[in-house]
Amino acid sequence: MESQQRTEIASLGEFGLIDHLTRNNETLNAGTLLSVGDDAAVIDHFGKQTVITTDLLLEGIHFDLAYTPLKHLGYKAVAVNLSDLCAMMATPTQITISIGISNRFSVEALDELYEGIYAACHRYEVDLVGGDTSTSLKGLVISVTAIGEVLTDQFITRSGAKEHDLICVSGDLGGAFLGLQLLEREKRIFEENPGVQPELSQHVYPIGRLLKPEPRTDIVAFLQEQKIVPSSMIDISDGLSSELLHICKKSGVGCVVYDDKIPIHPESKAAADELNLSAITCALSGGEDYELLFTIGQADYEKVITNPAITVIGYITPAEQRALLQTKAGPTHPLTAQGWNAFQ
Amino acid sequence: MESQQRTEIASLGEFGLIDHLTRNNETLNAGTLLSVGDDAAVIDHFGKQTVITTDLLLEGIHFDLAYTPLKHLGYKAVAVNLSDLCAMMATPTQITISIGISNRFSVEALDELYEGIYAACHRYEVDLVGGDTSTSLKGLVISVTAIGEVLTDQFITRSGAKEHDLICVSGDLGGAFLGLQLLEREKRIFEENPGVQPELSQHVYPIGRLLKPEPRTDIVAFLQEQKIVPSSMIDISDGLSSELLHICKKSGVGCVVYDDKIPIHPESKAAADELNLSAITCALSGGEDYELLFTIGQADYEKVITNPAITVIGYITPAEQRALLQTKAGPTHPLTAQGWNAFQ
Repeated sequence: MESQQRTEIASLGEFGLIDHLTRNNETLNAGTLLSVGDDAAVIDHFGKQTVITTDLLLEGIHFDLAYTPLKHLGYKAVAVNLSDLCAMMATPTQITISIGISNRFSVEALDELYEGIYAACHRYEVDLVGGDTSTSLKGLVISVTAIGEVLTDQFITRSGAKEHDLICVSGDLGGAFLGLQLLEREKRIFEENPGVQPELSQHVYPIGRLLKPEPRTDIVAFLQEQKIVPSSMIDISDGLSSELLHICKKSGVGCVVYDDKIPIHPESKAAADELNLSAITCALSGGEDYELLFTIGQADYEKVITNPAITVIGYITPAEQRALLQTKAGPTHPLTAQGWNAFQ
Repeated sequence: MESQQRTEIASLGEFGLIDHLTRNNETLNAGTLLSVGDDAAVIDHFGKQTVITTDLLLEGIHFDLAYTPLKHLGYKAVAVNLSDLCAMMATPTQITISIGISNRFSVEALDELYEGIYAACHRYEVDLVGGDTSTSLKGLVISVTAIGEVLTDQFITRSGAKEHDLICVSGDLGGAFLGLQLLEREKRIFEENPGVQPELSQHVYPIGRLLKPEPRTDIVAFLQEQKIVPSSMIDISDGLSSELLHICKKSGVGCVVYDDKIPIHPESKAAADELNLSAITCALSGGEDYELLFTIGQADYEKVITNPAITVIGYITPAEQRALLQTKAGPTHPLTAQGWNAFQ
């Protein structure tokens, strides 16, 4: 995972390391008044409201460096936070990033991590404006805070879904979870037979979904252009069921979702078949797809279906009808949040 | 450290735990439009500029739970971030907090941690608006991001110190470092003789400085009331020398500091004597005092000395004169940043 040269972090010291990692850091946003290098960063949103979210990524819990390239990890750490801003219909503008690293990491390894961080910053035009760099006794710790902006009171919460609203989802689901299962399987095979090279070439799509998620800024832009104002929105980090239940609980509504409407990529379906898993179950309960789940009024139906990246998967019902999955075969099932409960 | 009852975190689950920890969370700031419970928080600074800072605290690196009560740790995690905002002359308004915890912590232990977090929030009138809660394989991880506001372009950086400016410091220095040495000594004694009770009653002050630092919002308020605009400001987290060198480097200046002007508390002096340490060295190179270090024009001298919590310790010189410590005994020494280099 590391390049040939190995520079010890201790040879730079904390301030030298920060200077090294931020030496090419340029700011892209006019609102970034003061960036890395002082006690704090200063941001002007010029009268817009500030949106802020934070995520903690811990080695061994959220990622396994055995199959996660550091560059992808850096990219993903930024992407998943920007996804939360998208779920508010906010435009990402800045991030701060703190890392805790043990001395098993070299400066070159950190450079790879930051290459991914900066790649995501450039791709989504956000500025890295601060952070904290520390040693850790064990394991890599990454904490990202993302800042964005919305026009006054134009943010979308989880709590506005109303009866008869249509439930929409972007992209396709289940891929990231299946990518994880494939990588875990290859890791087990490799551990048992170190000579066997992993064979993943026919599973590029689901593995890419896990390793390099993209925040759906394109969907936010589409909704804004089309003047579609969702009644509620959330991003799918824990699986469709769990996120739908959040919207139902916060909005005080129920829902019906059709299993045959849930978008699943052909390569995800193929991976599910190979692993003897139900692709629908993976879409409902697998996490980390980072797609957007939102509800719209029926009047916006014609507009929303012009975007092939958006699928209508069901509708909102009164609270007493609970959250239901309508199967093509006939029976309905209550939706339950399997999610990825990190504490069990 | 924990109370009698032990509730396993797994019994609540991630969302149950977040609900539990934020059940009494009230917002105090009109600008806090949306708090915990959605994809992100929304803040309105009503035309003011946003100031943002973040810090990562790792068990075994930044704190030792053998002698750090969880309530104090929670308080300190907030306080040190607010101190960074003070160093920009910003008013703290919100924080986000992410924690990674292993299953050796109970819900009751987390309640203690959050009691300290909320105590700091109330004391400084900031709102807890978001965060992330995760399991960790080993060790407690705390990541705090603090948000504040300043009137347009009224923030103070490290880079504005000018020749002839006076160097000021709030409070007194070296106490936190000496408190740490005392606790480390008692820990060693206890490990060797578990029957011996620690005897720390005559060292309450330096230990308090380590365990419960306070951000100097009072100094910021005083400077604003007196219309004193510092030319540069930084908070003292790594020791006076290190912070002075930051100001000198960023401002392109040198400085002279008088060793007999550096404020040291009598109890810190007594602790230094008992430990056979130089109190001046502890003030120069010990960290974690979280006092403010700032420079002012000479015209503000009469105003600044009306505050007994502020001491003038030296003055700014041209860059070629470097950063010097003028000893009462006669010789001068170059200031060097021993600091607390976390990577060595």
